[in-house]
Amino acid sequence: MLAPIGKYEFTIDAYLTDFRGKATLPMLGGFMLQAATKHAEERGFGYSDMTSQQRVWVLSRMAIELYEYPKNDTVLIIKTWIVSVNRLFTERHFAFEDADGRILGYARSLWASIDLTTRKPTNILELDGLTDYINTNFECPIDGLSKIPLLKEDGSLVSEFTVKYSDVDINKHLNSMKYIEHFVDVFDIEMFKEKEIRRIEINYVAEGRYGSKLDIMSRSDDNDTFILEMRDGETNVCSAKVVWN
Amino acid sequence: MLAPIGKYEFTIDAYLTDFRGKATLPMLGGFMLQAATKHAEERGFGYSDMTSQQRVWVLSRMAIELYEYPKNDTVLIIKTWIVSVNRLFTERHFAFEDADGRILGYARSLWASIDLTTRKPTNILELDGLTDYINTNFECPIDGLSKIPLLKEDGSLVSEFTVKYSDVDINKHLNSMKYIEHFVDVFDIEMFKEKEIRRIEINYVAEGRYGSKLDIMSRSDDNDTFILEMRDGETNVCSAKVVWN
Repeated sequence: MLAPIGKYEFTIDAYLTDFRGKATLPMLGGFMLQAATKHAEERGFGYSDMTSQQRVWVLSRMAIELYEYPKNDTVLIIKTWIVSVNRLFTERHFAFEDADGRILGYARSLWASIDLTTRKPTNILELDGLTDYINTNFECPIDGLSKIPLLKEDGSLVSEFTVKYSDVDINKHLNSMKYIEHFVDVFDIEMFKEKEIRRIEINYVAEGRYGSKLDIMSRSDDNDTFILEMRDGETNVCSAKVVWN
Repeated sequence: MLAPIGKYEFTIDAYLTDFRGKATLPMLGGFMLQAATKHAEERGFGYSDMTSQQRVWVLSRMAIELYEYPKNDTVLIIKTWIVSVNRLFTERHFAFEDADGRILGYARSLWASIDLTTRKPTNILELDGLTDYINTNFECPIDGLSKIPLLKEDGSLVSEFTVKYSDVDINKHLNSMKYIEHFVDVFDIEMFKEKEIRRIEINYVAEGRYGSKLDIMSRSDDNDTFILEMRDGETNVCSAKVVWN
């Protein structure tokens, strides 16, 4: 049996960083997905194991908290492990470290498993091996995943976009990391010069479909904490809470 | 001295492929950049060597030709090497292979080096070691890099977008791979169900700046070959030629 914690290395490529020469949140989210995919694949509950059982993993909630953003031309180490499993969900945590083992941040994610045909949740406890890898010895000292409140009438429209070819994943829905990209892009670049996004939390509610025009609504009481909501007409597709400092 | 040809491995991650479960052109372009960056870094003319001399590499032209797109959960091998060097430009070629060594496609790229302050071209022949790595023994059997003709008045507006935080790179200009993403996204997803983009060729003309609203104009005589032009007002920022089959 493999170790419960998987450890994966990524290079922060200079030509893919943001204007500050730092890794972007969508890039880090992409690395998290790659680490999660490898960790699961190596342990027998990855993408191909799932599809052979007519199932697929679906990301339900995620929170990323960074004390420091990795800089270009450095190596980022992502550790990931399974924390809990029940019928409907499994929670996976992540730690971000630099090459010297210094902690840069942490992340949490909550996954469901749906049937490829009916799109309904399947029983995660049925998956071979998953519970064997539960690891509760490694801390993830950030706030838990919460339900982000709906904005109702008190948000203002800050962005709108149509879901295009490059936005959609193998399920023909908006790719999990593209949601982060569209959320992060509502902020003016000037904000990134003065401060950093310390925490981003996302609730994936419904699926953003190809061709649909999505609106992003925003509300902030203090200009540091923002509630963002992606809507398809009146339907909430995805919510995010972004905390700057 | 290292071998002139560098060989790098990438995994086509299921959660990052398109709706067909195939690698996308922006993803492959990103892998090409990563391979080029590593190849140059290992041989002494990479990003950090350049910036220590107040210079930076700038992509001028690129062509990618694919016989077959890599599928999710497979390994892609990218080989890359330097073909020629003169005062103003160096040409770098790429070969794409699957894990069995089967050729999936090729690419060519043309790079200039500019001064970080004046933004003017610098003499590439001055760079230590670059000419030592010229390799002309490995074929890249695709058409050369050409100048894409300007559309003038015969194109129609097919897309427009504002350059946002996630679009810009360390030079505060539209990231080379984001150009590909915006070009590929002008096509309806239905086209990707029936055919493939066999060749994409790009001329990077001017820099797409943060906050500017860019238009994409298109012209096609046969619905298989498209000339696309990205414009900032009347200024041509970037042109592409896309060939489907």
